[in-house]
Amino acid sequence: MITIDPDRLMGDLRTLAQFGKLGTGVDRTAFSEADMEARRWLLRRMEEAGLAVRIDGVGNVVGRGTGGGPAVLIGSHTDSVPKGGWLDGSMGVIYGLEIARAASESGNGAIIVDVISFEDEEGAYKGLLGSASFCGEIGAEEIAGTRNIEGKSLTDALQAHGLDDVAPERLEKGRYAAYLEAHIEQGPRLEAQAKRIGIVTGIVGIRRFHIVFDGQADHAGTTPMALRKDAGAAAVIFAAAMLGDFPALAGEDTVWNIGTAAFQPGAANVVPSRASLIVEFRDTSMAILDTFEAHVAKLADDTARDLGVTAAIEPSAAIEPSLLDDALGAHMAAAANEHGADFMLMPSGAGHDAMMMARHMPSAMLFVPSISGRSHDIAEDTDEADIVLGCQVMAKSVERILGG
Amino acid sequence: MITIDPDRLMGDLRTLAQFGKLGTGVDRTAFSEADMEARRWLLRRMEEAGLAVRIDGVGNVVGRGTGGGPAVLIGSHTDSVPKGGWLDGSMGVIYGLEIARAASESGNGAIIVDVISFEDEEGAYKGLLGSASFCGEIGAEEIAGTRNIEGKSLTDALQAHGLDDVAPERLEKGRYAAYLEAHIEQGPRLEAQAKRIGIVTGIVGIRRFHIVFDGQADHAGTTPMALRKDAGAAAVIFAAAMLGDFPALAGEDTVWNIGTAAFQPGAANVVPSRASLIVEFRDTSMAILDTFEAHVAKLADDTARDLGVTAAIEPSAAIEPSLLDDALGAHMAAAANEHGADFMLMPSGAGHDAMMMARHMPSAMLFVPSISGRSHDIAEDTDEADIVLGCQVMAKSVERILGG
Repeated sequence: MITIDPDRLMGDLRTLAQFGKLGTGVDRTAFSEADMEARRWLLRRMEEAGLAVRIDGVGNVVGRGTGGGPAVLIGSHTDSVPKGGWLDGSMGVIYGLEIARAASESGNGAIIVDVISFEDEEGAYKGLLGSASFCGEIGAEEIAGTRNIEGKSLTDALQAHGLDDVAPERLEKGRYAAYLEAHIEQGPRLEAQAKRIGIVTGIVGIRRFHIVFDGQADHAGTTPMALRKDAGAAAVIFAAAMLGDFPALAGEDTVWNIGTAAFQPGAANVVPSRASLIVEFRDTSMAILDTFEAHVAKLADDTARDLGVTAAIEPSAAIEPSLLDDALGAHMAAAANEHGADFMLMPSGAGHDAMMMARHMPSAMLFVPSISGRSHDIAEDTDEADIVLGCQVMAKSVERILGG
Repeated sequence: MITIDPDRLMGDLRTLAQFGKLGTGVDRTAFSEADMEARRWLLRRMEEAGLAVRIDGVGNVVGRGTGGGPAVLIGSHTDSVPKGGWLDGSMGVIYGLEIARAASESGNGAIIVDVISFEDEEGAYKGLLGSASFCGEIGAEEIAGTRNIEGKSLTDALQAHGLDDVAPERLEKGRYAAYLEAHIEQGPRLEAQAKRIGIVTGIVGIRRFHIVFDGQADHAGTTPMALRKDAGAAAVIFAAAMLGDFPALAGEDTVWNIGTAAFQPGAANVVPSRASLIVEFRDTSMAILDTFEAHVAKLADDTARDLGVTAAIEPSAAIEPSLLDDALGAHMAAAANEHGADFMLMPSGAGHDAMMMARHMPSAMLFVPSISGRSHDIAEDTDEADIVLGCQVMAKSVERILGG
């Protein structure tokens, strides 16, 4: 039986949080000094755990367990957003480290655990860079053309850390029974429902649209209502109708948002000639995403026609849903039951390296609660008992998956 | 009978349009060199017409007809907005000049016409400055504290033109039977209804509100719909309900507008924590303005309560309606009929010096059509035949009012 050491787990997590420490959180964006120091520390800790380690050509830290497989790959990322939380990504990596150590200590040679910290999940240069490289979905040409928001090239970042001549680590076909990723929830649902474990059914797809209504600017005092082509009125009437209609079209976990609104020219006494909204919605079901998209198009057209304006709908993001593996999820559920942990099935509303991994091997994710749902913020935190329980449930899942 | 000279009228209008000429329009903001040159030219033309002239301490150009009264005061303003039209204000002043000349030529001593070009109607320093000073509604202290948008003081502007030691011209009580102001419509209504003369029933009051909904920023992917406090949703639901309800509460000429909308923090994937709208409505009826205001307050509160957010309503402008004189309007209507001119009664949706004058004497306004409703733009224009007809109707109105 694999038995994790809670103190060692928490100790490693707290040590990792010293790299780039910022108040109660961390500032450890990909390829920053803090990020690379953390990766070198992680490499040493993996080596001490008996793993065969390397940092690859995009900064991924990989530790391989002893034996030919089948193995389980456990990982996440140790880079953070600017002014981020101490657990986002890090917790999933340290779970891997602790479970690999505990597996080795158990003496059960059938439990082979590899551990990975992917680089730049958060997208300082390119979101999911490490997992995309590991899966062979990004090549040298695309890497050469990638720059961060300040215009610095990814190639320069790799050179600065001596990684430009290092080969990428690629997924070894046939080695893995599963990719497992644990993560803080980054939302309030587990806390709201008093559940300690979330078993992730899939990572939502996202459709995002820039919706622009064009009408005519007129003096709002002298132009009678009947003669106006009011783009702003079209936008709010469309938006309210959309918000009114979506609940009836939604699945249990569908979410949607109007994150921005802007009117032009934007003066109190001028009828808006242009009104722009950004609308997005997320679900694990393609059918629901399709239904929402068709409804948005119809509502925008109908509203524009009613108000004598025009509507243009530009997709600005389209991410396919990622379905996680039900059989692995069932192992996690059984493991949670064995630990007496209340759990719920839920989608992930945010992206993760598991999105990429699920395209290449059976993958599963486990969530632990975020206090007050906070994430991407130094205030992000999780009860220590929940952190420990999550690791215990994942360790038990590994045993079940590998039949140990 | 007063007979105006169309060529002289058009000639003076075209000459005036040379001062600050900008393409087909003028740039003649108050106290600019172009504005002051135009005023000195106007002073000479008034003097040539036999009026007793002066430029007063705020830049008003005043010409008094011969005789003790009762007289009619005809005027408007010769300052413009930046990049403005050639007729806005100017037409009403030149009508006065032409009618004063024609009255003098008629030899009818009972027709006494005074003419005035008020300064800074458009508010380069202070809107309605000239008419407010003429009516004694602005004193030296307020003038001393007034600055333009670049921070230049009105006192400096007056000094620069040698006006700082000049006494203001004040309304002479008992002299006037009426203040008459002609103006281009600045909207599309006359053109849309194929009317050549608008007789203005009143100048609308304006109520303007800054409406702010405050909720909570949350991750739009990970926060279930039921746990959100979405300020943006509140704003669009409120706005659409308001636009839906207003027509049933409106009078025939009520207008309303939502000129600006802004969401904070303003990211596609963040539930808006704050949403702001600027809402205004205009009518000549205080009762309708009160009804609209009460409905806005109730709708904002109801919507905020429904969505678990808060609403704050800040008045940002409140201008009382100005009712013009019905008896003078009836004289204008009769005059229009005598000239076979199709006319309509209408409110003015924009402000004018007549707003100020109506508080101190019986006042009336006459509109001529704006081509395509344009104004405050160098593209502003009016058919020459309409300009001439408007002056003929106003001259006839003066005869009727003074019983000539």
